[in-house]
Amino acid sequence: MMGFQKPPGTQDILPGQSEYWQAVESKARDICRRFRFSEVRTPIFEATELFKRGVGEATDIVEKEMYTFEDRGQRSMTLRPEGTAGVVRSYVENKLFGEPDVSKLYYIGPMFRYERAQAGRYRQFHQFGVEAIGSSDPALDAEVIALGYTFYRELGLTGVTVDLNSVGTPEVRAIYREKLLAFLIPIKDTLCKDCQTRMERNPIRVLDCKVDQDKFTNAPSILDSLDEECETHFARVRECLDEMGIPYNVNSRLVRGLDYYTHTAFEYKAQGIGAIDTIGGGGRYNGLVAEIGGDDKPGVGLGLGLERTLILLESQGIKPDTGNAADVYVVALGERAERALPALLQRLRMAGIAAERDYLGRKTKAQFKAAERSGARLSAVLGDDELDRGEISLRLTSNGQQLQSVKLADLSNEIQNYLTTDNEKGKNNS
Amino acid sequence: MMGFQKPPGTQDILPGQSEYWQAVESKARDICRRFRFSEVRTPIFEATELFKRGVGEATDIVEKEMYTFEDRGQRSMTLRPEGTAGVVRSYVENKLFGEPDVSKLYYIGPMFRYERAQAGRYRQFHQFGVEAIGSSDPALDAEVIALGYTFYRELGLTGVTVDLNSVGTPEVRAIYREKLLAFLIPIKDTLCKDCQTRMERNPIRVLDCKVDQDKFTNAPSILDSLDEECETHFARVRECLDEMGIPYNVNSRLVRGLDYYTHTAFEYKAQGIGAIDTIGGGGRYNGLVAEIGGDDKPGVGLGLGLERTLILLESQGIKPDTGNAADVYVVALGERAERALPALLQRLRMAGIAAERDYLGRKTKAQFKAAERSGARLSAVLGDDELDRGEISLRLTSNGQQLQSVKLADLSNEIQNYLTTDNEKGKNNS
Repeated sequence: MMGFQKPPGTQDILPGQSEYWQAVESKARDICRRFRFSEVRTPIFEATELFKRGVGEATDIVEKEMYTFEDRGQRSMTLRPEGTAGVVRSYVENKLFGEPDVSKLYYIGPMFRYERAQAGRYRQFHQFGVEAIGSSDPALDAEVIALGYTFYRELGLTGVTVDLNSVGTPEVRAIYREKLLAFLIPIKDTLCKDCQTRMERNPIRVLDCKVDQDKFTNAPSILDSLDEECETHFARVRECLDEMGIPYNVNSRLVRGLDYYTHTAFEYKAQGIGAIDTIGGGGRYNGLVAEIGGDDKPGVGLGLGLERTLILLESQGIKPDTGNAADVYVVALGERAERALPALLQRLRMAGIAAERDYLGRKTKAQFKAAERSGARLSAVLGDDELDRGEISLRLTSNGQQLQSVKLADLSNEIQNYLTTDNEKGKNNS
Repeated sequence: MMGFQKPPGTQDILPGQSEYWQAVESKARDICRRFRFSEVRTPIFEATELFKRGVGEATDIVEKEMYTFEDRGQRSMTLRPEGTAGVVRSYVENKLFGEPDVSKLYYIGPMFRYERAQAGRYRQFHQFGVEAIGSSDPALDAEVIALGYTFYRELGLTGVTVDLNSVGTPEVRAIYREKLLAFLIPIKDTLCKDCQTRMERNPIRVLDCKVDQDKFTNAPSILDSLDEECETHFARVRECLDEMGIPYNVNSRLVRGLDYYTHTAFEYKAQGIGAIDTIGGGGRYNGLVAEIGGDDKPGVGLGLGLERTLILLESQGIKPDTGNAADVYVVALGERAERALPALLQRLRMAGIAAERDYLGRKTKAQFKAAERSGARLSAVLGDDELDRGEISLRLTSNGQQLQSVKLADLSNEIQNYLTTDNEKGKNNS
């Protein structure tokens, strides 16, 4: 019969790769602990209307890319295409705005967009994001930017840069829109089809175009249209970043895809994953909470693509420490020894030791080969004779060197001692 | 305007609760590290046909409970209602059967079933599961059972018991089915509607009925129908569990819902979550890999419900250690001090310290209250004068006791020293 395949645009993350995902997620959680963001987990699907409202009806995401379906109660549901709308919905529904402190929330999980299949683009992809809701302090914008930057840096990535802009308030953008249109209309015929369509609906997004960049050199900058409030906010964000030692480039053409951004917009860029150089981004969204039905609370957040982070790690040859190797492989040399394994391994594992064995009734030599494949530093070899004496011998898996014969009852302790001492040696040497 | 609500039967896991989820998942990962299971992550949705094949067309799950939809390429997709089918599909598609060792895989994640809404039942629920594919060694069945038992025990849960049965092979079940029908047909009219329907389709599942249990006291036991191979396998599973110190009850009426089980079937039971007393379970499924299009490889696995685990922890008054408290709350006493916070907090956080501050321009007293709410052991208080001297004072948050005045440049070290010493004191005292 024919086998089944994973759905197009999705991945299986297998052993050998999943450990890197764990390491990247651990780093995200540890950074959030230090920056004091707490995890929120919202459902994988939400009412379709939420995304129309929170992402915007006239966006590619809502128009073309959502996984929308009717549930068995005839409600229109959509697999979340991004993380912010669900978190803000949860903030409002659970009345977190009633709490005295700013809500600093993070999420890690799958998102879904039916995009054209291409390298590095997945229909199920994964994001690490944070949302800080309830303060318009520009220091918070800077902290969010610093959080993402610190995440990439501590993973060991080099060459990650921050692009920074202010997209002002809706009022500022209305004024800027007119200035920009006055610049664009005379050159309209020279622009690509996409740009011509965007000019009708959202001319600011024209500046995003990859094709026509060179034609915008003399375009007016939104930064020249900022009012005093926007100026002050943006100046303080830059000052905080300077003082925090976070480098950035002001890029007045940076416009994020979503309509709800106000003031700060930023993106993380990196070389080394082909044509795609944006690996994450975010901004302030002071109008969104009210849009989703809550009190008028300001917010700022970011979303980082985990697939892109992992591709970048690989392209820079960085292997995060997974801490996942086996400690010991137990080899049984006879039938009685083999029958003693279940109890022996359970004892080791309850003592905190990562212990592996063979389950295929293999001969001695094949068990030693399996021990090597397992990556276990130590092998514990149990023969029927040794079993009778209540002993077991420890060897180095790599070269078979015999270390010592130990009492079965002391095995956990001896392994722990050996691993601790050996680790410390390793540290001193490095 | 009206606010949005989470979809019926789903949950928001908020700060205060998410930390317990993290702790439970960390425990699952650590147990898998020791038992040498590696994580696999399969897509949230799969081809609908996979679940029809892997779960069974005539099951409640497939007939009534699946979230099925057509994607934008007119393929019928289904949100995974359980974890095994996707993992086995991934095992086959990625040719893991070609690897020399047994594939020992685990997963943690959301599953979806459109069930009748009731307490403790969610339409998006979460499972921790393991699958060991490629060996029919009964010691592996025992290890899988031990893994789940150790998970519950190490979380601190008491009163978790293991029910164990052998459901034989398809051949054995065909013989037993006839014996059982001979017993059931004479009492058919006394049974509930559900049982009468089940008698037609799958009489063995009648034994699962909650309503009619007392009528089955004299029903034939499947254990009396086992052939020699089944007997031997079951005996060795019990022997391994005995030697490993895992207690269990043989329950010949235990039949798992899914058709693909062979030999071992088991469930974990617990008091304390209302009517529901099964918190997880699993079994051996020697026919499933071939059913899903792969080589004929035997497998054994389990799936544990995380919602039920968390409810049980709460009902037993167990709060897992989340290790997530803030280390220090930095209070600014003046305007210049406040402007110095971004750089100061970034330095602390880069040094590994969990540092919090106020973002609402609050007065001193309100900042001290926020420090208490944050749970930070220490408060670092910065005035404009101290800033000029390059100093900051450390206090105990709980009672405001002044500890010392330290150089700003030494703050990270002083906090680290204080927290380490204090932790050790705490350990010695307890």
